[in-house]
Amino acid sequence: MSRFWSDIVHRLTPYVPGEQPVLAHPVKLNTNENPYPPSPRVVEAIRRELGDDGASLRKYPDPTALALCEAVAKHHGLRIEQVFAGNGSDEVLAHAFQALLKRDRPIRFPDITYSFYPVYAQLYGVEYETMPLNADFAIDVDDYRAPNGGVLLPNPNAPTGRALPLAEIEVLLKANPDVPVIIDEAYVDFGAQSAISLIDTYPNLLVVHTTSKARSLAGMRVGFAFGDPALIEALTRVKDSFNSYPLDRLAQAAALASYEDQAWFEESCAKVAASRDRLTAQLQALGFDVVPSAANFVFAKHPAHDAATLAAALKAKEIFVRHFRLPRIDQHLRISIGTPAECDTLVAALTELIG
Amino acid sequence: MSRFWSDIVHRLTPYVPGEQPVLAHPVKLNTNENPYPPSPRVVEAIRRELGDDGASLRKYPDPTALALCEAVAKHHGLRIEQVFAGNGSDEVLAHAFQALLKRDRPIRFPDITYSFYPVYAQLYGVEYETMPLNADFAIDVDDYRAPNGGVLLPNPNAPTGRALPLAEIEVLLKANPDVPVIIDEAYVDFGAQSAISLIDTYPNLLVVHTTSKARSLAGMRVGFAFGDPALIEALTRVKDSFNSYPLDRLAQAAALASYEDQAWFEESCAKVAASRDRLTAQLQALGFDVVPSAANFVFAKHPAHDAATLAAALKAKEIFVRHFRLPRIDQHLRISIGTPAECDTLVAALTELIG
Repeated sequence: MSRFWSDIVHRLTPYVPGEQPVLAHPVKLNTNENPYPPSPRVVEAIRRELGDDGASLRKYPDPTALALCEAVAKHHGLRIEQVFAGNGSDEVLAHAFQALLKRDRPIRFPDITYSFYPVYAQLYGVEYETMPLNADFAIDVDDYRAPNGGVLLPNPNAPTGRALPLAEIEVLLKANPDVPVIIDEAYVDFGAQSAISLIDTYPNLLVVHTTSKARSLAGMRVGFAFGDPALIEALTRVKDSFNSYPLDRLAQAAALASYEDQAWFEESCAKVAASRDRLTAQLQALGFDVVPSAANFVFAKHPAHDAATLAAALKAKEIFVRHFRLPRIDQHLRISIGTPAECDTLVAALTELIG
Repeated sequence: MSRFWSDIVHRLTPYVPGEQPVLAHPVKLNTNENPYPPSPRVVEAIRRELGDDGASLRKYPDPTALALCEAVAKHHGLRIEQVFAGNGSDEVLAHAFQALLKRDRPIRFPDITYSFYPVYAQLYGVEYETMPLNADFAIDVDDYRAPNGGVLLPNPNAPTGRALPLAEIEVLLKANPDVPVIIDEAYVDFGAQSAISLIDTYPNLLVVHTTSKARSLAGMRVGFAFGDPALIEALTRVKDSFNSYPLDRLAQAAALASYEDQAWFEESCAKVAASRDRLTAQLQALGFDVVPSAANFVFAKHPAHDAATLAAALKAKEIFVRHFRLPRIDQHLRISIGTPAECDTLVAALTELIG
C-alpha cells in the first residue's frame, strides 16, 4: 500500500507463475514446459542473427515482426493481416482483454481454467462470469450462449487438459455472433483440433497460440493471435500504444526458425503425447483418477491421498508438480509431461509415497 | 472500426516509431540507436545461455529477472527492492502510467517531449496537461509545482536533447512531495546527471533507464525503473497481472553482461559524445541552430531550409533522420549520432543540399 499507487494497484491480485527451482537437476513437471529442446534450426538462426560481434543488437527489431508473421501466416494458411505477434501469449491475451473484451456485458470463461484470466479481468476492469465445468471437468458450450460480452476458453482447457471437438467450438461461435470468442490454443498441438480453419467464416473468432509449449521456446516469449483483420487491428492498436517493439531480434529469429522445421515439431509433439498416454496408464495403475488429456500435462487426483501433501512430498524429492489451492481442484495435481526418464522418476516416487 | 472493438480502441492514436529501412547500408540516424556494437561480453553471454543445443530455451526465464536486477542494483548502489526490469523502457513507462500516474488530477509533462507519453495517457485514461518549453526549448521546473497528479520528464529531454541539472530535479521533487515524479533517463549516459542518487531521499521519485541507447541493446528490449520499494511494488503488481515473464532468457543474459563491462560502456558513450560535439560544430558552420544536447542526438533547425524537405532529400540519399510534423518543431530535424563516417556522410549531403 502506498499513497503513490493508482487505485487499480490496490485492487490487484497478481498471477503467481509456477516455481522456477534453483536446483542443479530438478524434475520440473510444474510449468508445462516441453522436455525436448527446440529445433537445431532455432539455435542456428539465433547464432546467425547474433553474428560475430552482435552488431545487429544495437538496432531496434522490426516493430511489426513482419518476416515472422509472414512465415506463421503461411504455416497456417492465413493472410498476414490475420496474424498478430506478442511477447508470449500472456501478453497477447492481456492485449485481447483490453482491446476486445471490455464490453457492456460480462464475458464468460470456465470456473476451472487458466488462472490468469481473472487477473487480466481485474487489471482492465472487465466484468466476467465463470461457468462451472461439469462433474467430469468438461465444458458445456450451452453455458456460453449469448447474451454475454464475449467468451474465452482454452482448448484444451488448463489445468484439466480436456479438449473440445471443433464442432463444439463452431456451436459456440454460432451462438455468439455479436461478441468476440477467444480460443486459447496454447496446448492444441498435443492432441486437440485447432479452430484456425474457422477464422475465414467467423469474424468474431480469435485464436491464440504460443511457441512456449509445442515449440520448446518458453524461454523466448513469443505468442500469436489469429483472426479477422479487424480483430488483429484492435490488438495492433493497443500494442502500438503500449510498446512498439515487443519482440527482440533473437526472439523473432528463433520463432521464425521453429516454423521452418515441421519434422522436429511433429516428432517432439508425438513423443510428448506418447509419454502422456503412458504416464496416464501408470497413474491409473496407482489408483489415480486422471482427466483425459489432449495437452502436455495430466490432471490427476488420488482418492486416498491429499494433493497438497503429495506435492510437498514430491518437492522434497526435487520433483516439482503444480498444485492449485482453488475450489473444486485442491485435491488434484497438474503434472507436466517430462522425458520418459522424468516420468519414470515421478512414478517411482509416487509408488513409494502411496504404494 | 469494428463492432468487436472495446471502446478504448476507437479512441487510440498509436505511437509511430521511426522507420526501420530495408536497405543494405542505410545511414540510419533516425531512431537514436548507438552506432557501436554492444560489449563482446554480451555476445559471449548470449552464446553461453544458448549452449550447444538451445536446451535452456525450452524452460521459462526467471520471471523476476533476479540475477539481472541484482547486477543493476549493485551497479547503481541500490537495493534489489529498488529495481524493476521490463521489456524495454517503453513497457516500463506503460506500466508506470497504469500503476502510478492514474490519479485524481492531471499529470504534467512538457509540450515537446517523447511523443509516446500522450499515447500512454490515452491508453490508460490518464488526464494530462502539457507545459510549454521556453523559447530555448528548456524546461522551467516552476511550471511543475503542485497541485498536479504527477510529473513526467525525460532528462535529457527528447527530441530536444537538452538536460536539466540535478539541482533542478531536486527542486521539482521538493515542489511535488505527494505525487509521483518520473524522470525518464533514456539518454542520461551521454552527458546528463542521473537522479538515482536522490532515490533514498525522495520516496516519490521513479527513474527510468534503458539498455537501448548507451548499452547498444535496442534489439534486445530491456529497460528498468529505479525507486522507492513501494513504487517498485506497484510496477511489479501490474507486471504480474499482465505478463509474468516479460524478459526472455537471452535478453536477461545480454543485459546482465552489459553491466559487467564498464570500460566498454564508458568508451562507447565517450565516442558518441565526441561525435555529437563535432557534428554540432559542423551543423552550426552550415548555418543550423542546434539545441545544446546532452544526448546521443542533436535537434537542429536551418533558418533558410524547410525541415521536411531536407529530411526527404536526405532520405533520397538513403540517409534517415527524424522529422516530427508537430507544432513548434516542424522546422527541426532530430539527428542521431552515428559513427564519425556516418556523420561525415550526413554533413557532406547537407553541404550539397544547402551549401
